[in-house]
Amino acid sequence: MTFTGWLKMANRNVEIICVGNELLIGKTLNTNAHWLAKRITSLGLTVNRITVVGDNLNDISAIIKEAIQRTPCFIITTGGLGPTFDDMTLEGIAKGLGRELEENQEAMDMVRKKYERYVAEGRIDKYEMTPYRKKMAKLPKDAMPLPNPVGTAPGVLINESQVKIIVLPGVPSEMMAIFDESVAPIMRKNSGDLMFFEASLDVKEMPESQLAPLIDEVMRDNPYIYIKSHPQASEKVPHLELHLSTTSIDPKIARQRMSKAIVQISEMIKGKGGKVKPIMS
Amino acid sequence: MTFTGWLKMANRNVEIICVGNELLIGKTLNTNAHWLAKRITSLGLTVNRITVVGDNLNDISAIIKEAIQRTPCFIITTGGLGPTFDDMTLEGIAKGLGRELEENQEAMDMVRKKYERYVAEGRIDKYEMTPYRKKMAKLPKDAMPLPNPVGTAPGVLINESQVKIIVLPGVPSEMMAIFDESVAPIMRKNSGDLMFFEASLDVKEMPESQLAPLIDEVMRDNPYIYIKSHPQASEKVPHLELHLSTTSIDPKIARQRMSKAIVQISEMIKGKGGKVKPIMS
Repeated sequence: MTFTGWLKMANRNVEIICVGNELLIGKTLNTNAHWLAKRITSLGLTVNRITVVGDNLNDISAIIKEAIQRTPCFIITTGGLGPTFDDMTLEGIAKGLGRELEENQEAMDMVRKKYERYVAEGRIDKYEMTPYRKKMAKLPKDAMPLPNPVGTAPGVLINESQVKIIVLPGVPSEMMAIFDESVAPIMRKNSGDLMFFEASLDVKEMPESQLAPLIDEVMRDNPYIYIKSHPQASEKVPHLELHLSTTSIDPKIARQRMSKAIVQISEMIKGKGGKVKPIMS
Repeated sequence: MTFTGWLKMANRNVEIICVGNELLIGKTLNTNAHWLAKRITSLGLTVNRITVVGDNLNDISAIIKEAIQRTPCFIITTGGLGPTFDDMTLEGIAKGLGRELEENQEAMDMVRKKYERYVAEGRIDKYEMTPYRKKMAKLPKDAMPLPNPVGTAPGVLINESQVKIIVLPGVPSEMMAIFDESVAPIMRKNSGDLMFFEASLDVKEMPESQLAPLIDEVMRDNPYIYIKSHPQASEKVPHLELHLSTTSIDPKIARQRMSKAIVQISEMIKGKGGKVKPIMS
């Protein structure tokens, strides 16, 4: 049973969709996907797929349709929520779901209050509710805005049968703030208290091809532990990071299982002449 | 006409597929996709989609089938080429394409020569061609191995009707070395000498919602120029990066077009009380 297969049983599956040409031309490193994947995993859910598409209506609506068909419990999107012409994530999602895009009163109030505060703080002189600003409050029908504690465009929650679609901005500070304030509490409910545990070992003087059969054996003996080897930059001496992980609702059981596997693989590596030590993080 | 739509005309489309649980649990930041996207864009091709899937046979074969159906000119995969149990990219691709996986003599010679060199260099004492090592030379039928100048597992090139599938390792130094040595020359032929040009402006004291109509106007006047605004971390004063890009086979024409658009948008921003200056990189 593979790591992914095992967690699939309870549908804790999550897909991340990042929207932005800047990611496809290699201008921007996708730290949003990395941050979200780490947080979602630590909340006990499983990220099965991450997709990056451009600021293009057809591409956004296509990936939403595809992801819905795989019926994850959550789809999280980032990017494309601002006021400019190429911010079209909500329009793309509405198209993908076959819903109308309509002015959402709650979202409009959120956007208006933001501009009132910007004026009060002297960040801008005055404001008008231009079409460019109203755009940030046009949501797919029956969507719910999520407050943005640090920026203007609200996040959005859409229920599509069993799938919760969560739409977040691309600016990292805004994406993280909305996630922590509004998304993490919803996800925690879905994870059923499952937690993710991990540990790493530093292995030297043993090539990956010699380590491979040892990993196979330890994973056979420890069915709840997933082990993956990560070769480090080429050196004269073979050098790898061995990453062990498991999920459990009980930290004590998780620690026992991890310890058993770590002791077993460490002794096997030493027995074959390799060097091994824990990596503290 | 959008940026993506415009380049689609000549099928210079590329999809990147990254395989690895470490990306889905947020252990590893996907610098491979970023590096590839930048290099491929600079070679005059267009990355349309980046997908990350786990070390899972069904997920790998599914994404390969999906990507093939979108008929890009290239599919580039990274990760899952090593000797361990969860290195299954080639098996997943073979499954997705309905091809057999078979020992490739050329790949086997490449792997064997690597181990002979490791012994000669004193990195390992001796070697045997274990099943774990032979695995790196098992390729989908009619595939071609690409030499790996810095690691053990060769890259792979597979022709599937009009789509070239290029399979690269996940270790960044190996991925980059094979790309530069074997992949870039093939891609350059496909790009028809098209080049990518970009420039950035630093814009202050103008909120994105006020900039949005100016971008619309300048893009209408400059149909070959794509402009995207990137809000910077929240500050008291609004702060954005404005990224302008175009592609052309003629650097002189590209520079003229870029200059015209930069001058126009800069004057409009200043006229509305904003501050603008070029960002030198």
